[in-house]
Amino acid sequence: MEMSILLKRILMMDGMRRDILIKGNRIAKIGSVREKAEKTIDGKDKAVLPGFVNMHTHAAMTLFRGFADDMEFYEAWPKKIWPAESKLAGRDVYAGTKLACLEMLKSGTTCFNDMYFYSEDIARAVRETGIRAVVSELFLDRKEVHAYDIGEKKTIKVMDAIRKAGGSRVTPAMGPHAVYTLSKESLSWISGYAREHGLLMHTHLSETRKENEDCVKKCGMRPVELLDSIGFLGDNVIASHCVWLTKAEVGVLARRNVTAVHNPTSNMKLASGGVMPYPEMRQAGMNVTLGTDGCASNNSLSMFEAMKTAALLQKSHRWDQTVLPAADAIEMATANAGRALRLEIGKIAEGMLADLILIDLNRPELTPRTNLQSNIVYAANAGCVDTAICDGRIVMEKSKVRGEERIMAEAEKTAERLMAKVG
Amino acid sequence: MEMSILLKRILMMDGMRRDILIKGNRIAKIGSVREKAEKTIDGKDKAVLPGFVNMHTHAAMTLFRGFADDMEFYEAWPKKIWPAESKLAGRDVYAGTKLACLEMLKSGTTCFNDMYFYSEDIARAVRETGIRAVVSELFLDRKEVHAYDIGEKKTIKVMDAIRKAGGSRVTPAMGPHAVYTLSKESLSWISGYAREHGLLMHTHLSETRKENEDCVKKCGMRPVELLDSIGFLGDNVIASHCVWLTKAEVGVLARRNVTAVHNPTSNMKLASGGVMPYPEMRQAGMNVTLGTDGCASNNSLSMFEAMKTAALLQKSHRWDQTVLPAADAIEMATANAGRALRLEIGKIAEGMLADLILIDLNRPELTPRTNLQSNIVYAANAGCVDTAICDGRIVMEKSKVRGEERIMAEAEKTAERLMAKVG
Repeated sequence: MEMSILLKRILMMDGMRRDILIKGNRIAKIGSVREKAEKTIDGKDKAVLPGFVNMHTHAAMTLFRGFADDMEFYEAWPKKIWPAESKLAGRDVYAGTKLACLEMLKSGTTCFNDMYFYSEDIARAVRETGIRAVVSELFLDRKEVHAYDIGEKKTIKVMDAIRKAGGSRVTPAMGPHAVYTLSKESLSWISGYAREHGLLMHTHLSETRKENEDCVKKCGMRPVELLDSIGFLGDNVIASHCVWLTKAEVGVLARRNVTAVHNPTSNMKLASGGVMPYPEMRQAGMNVTLGTDGCASNNSLSMFEAMKTAALLQKSHRWDQTVLPAADAIEMATANAGRALRLEIGKIAEGMLADLILIDLNRPELTPRTNLQSNIVYAANAGCVDTAICDGRIVMEKSKVRGEERIMAEAEKTAERLMAKVG
Repeated sequence: MEMSILLKRILMMDGMRRDILIKGNRIAKIGSVREKAEKTIDGKDKAVLPGFVNMHTHAAMTLFRGFADDMEFYEAWPKKIWPAESKLAGRDVYAGTKLACLEMLKSGTTCFNDMYFYSEDIARAVRETGIRAVVSELFLDRKEVHAYDIGEKKTIKVMDAIRKAGGSRVTPAMGPHAVYTLSKESLSWISGYAREHGLLMHTHLSETRKENEDCVKKCGMRPVELLDSIGFLGDNVIASHCVWLTKAEVGVLARRNVTAVHNPTSNMKLASGGVMPYPEMRQAGMNVTLGTDGCASNNSLSMFEAMKTAALLQKSHRWDQTVLPAADAIEMATANAGRALRLEIGKIAEGMLADLILIDLNRPELTPRTNLQSNIVYAANAGCVDTAICDGRIVMEKSKVRGEERIMAEAEKTAERLMAKVG
């Protein structure tokens, strides 16, 4: 029998109070509901939002939180992060991803778009914590082994393994890392395979000036040109960062229906220098979404912070208070992401999947209730989330997730073991 | 009889666990304590920090949270904020300040440096909520009434009223608003009075380019030059913003021992354009602190956010990940502020006033515990604060402040009444 949940007279983003009936994993009715449900939640001091979608994570990097901060990239990554990553086993990634899932649920995120090693273990962590995710198999050329060597058979096997381990809330995808870690041939093979099999691709694009300059040195083209020249760019591409783009490149990405992911905190913390050209992207009609990036470069997975930092950074950079208003930030964190991931999430409407969060309005930072959108983007924090519903199931209630102590203890032990190995 | 509190084997910022004994309103002993106390708190899953000090607030502006966001300053302030402010009565400021005090306590702030109207009502709100504050009487020239018209007698009266309404946790101070709202004569009179009576001065300085340009037009000097020419600058001056300063001006402020307040979120949200020259200030040996600014320009009072945003903004602006590391951010939010306010707060040491916060370490965003400082600055949020102790009294326990529902309800009603008046 299908589970049913009724949210009674709950505040919605348009300022109106309505009933929301969830049946099975979908939103069955919005308005005035007379039907009884197995579970009724009083919406009196609560607002409902679509669960946030974190569009760029390396979830298991929670294990490296606080491990290499306030250092130059070329000190931190080659000397600390990469050696630690080389010690990772599947069970470590599983423990780190579970911690990330817990942190995300607690801060209102019900779906994330991940890219990391051991995708089967990631998928398992997602299934067990009750969250939703797109899990990319990471493709990197290593020494003599090119991504295209992996071949069709092996890739089919990996995609099936992700699907099997993750169940219905996990979508497998391809994760071609970046133009600086993959040959043109590998990129070409991956994108051909993805197109043929209807898979999404999750990649890094023009995050740093160095990446652009190196690409020009190596193949005489900037990253966007290179990708476009091999037919890589399409509506299945999720391009993270997009910091160092020309206006012409924004035009190319828009024409190819590429989705961009803005990671303002990561870009600022890693001192990437530039700022993603959001106004030009919007002008060109691009689909723009939001992400936190991994915990070695943020170090939080809160989408509240991502929304506010995005708005602050864009306003500050353009000397214009009107750039990236609160409504945009919420769209980027919800509806735009649902569209990019081809999932029926990110909007509260009848027939959509029931991925919802309930905000506790009885908090000083959300008082007065003059402007809910503004309060969500500029004043709220992770502590404001009371309930998380994913795929029609309550995965968090009164800010508690079942088994959270065990998840934290496991991750703590795993991180300590890793740190001991690398010093 | 004096109240005593014992924090048992609690984690300190240096990574060590110690006992902390509080007697009356001071830290009596740190180390291994055998003495019994009336109240013992188990420090097992907790870290202790000095309570944060928010160095620039207009606390009662919580009432205007979400009222004029994503608009140009010259749309938002003259057309919305100022008309609303003109309707404020003392009891409104009291209700708004109480809400701010509640929000601050819940996000780990135990002292703030305020500047607003109705300072007696502000002081009363501070006393009742158990927090600590420096409350400035705001000085502005209005039409034919200059600040110096207020005169000595009236000022003595106001300072006494603040002291009386606020009790021992409130320090009265002078709040000369800015060079663009006060005549040279008024500024001169205020600074003379403050020096003579040993009072702190809280002012806005070089927040926008317009302010600098207008000052040059009006009197042929930039704001720092103007203030220095009349002997305004000294170690009793707390200068908020300091965004648009030359290196020479940083030198002047450093020589005069002026304290700067960095308000990164406000500067970004209001698109002030520039970025406070933190590396140059530090180089010059200036005392630099942190603030949130009022809720119409932030809209949060969380010092966690202020610390992280400061670190992000400085790194991003200088293309250098090493600028403003976590340790600096914590110093700015604690010890540097204590020094500026001439209060024995901001450090955990025997003999200091007992203004402390306890962080709940059992949270996913604070896992793993690799680096406590980094976790506090880059990963923590308001929800991580379990206990707040101010002046030796527990004012928050298990994230609850006594009477919080009533404070929120009062503020909500007050804001609704104001909004109804101004539309």
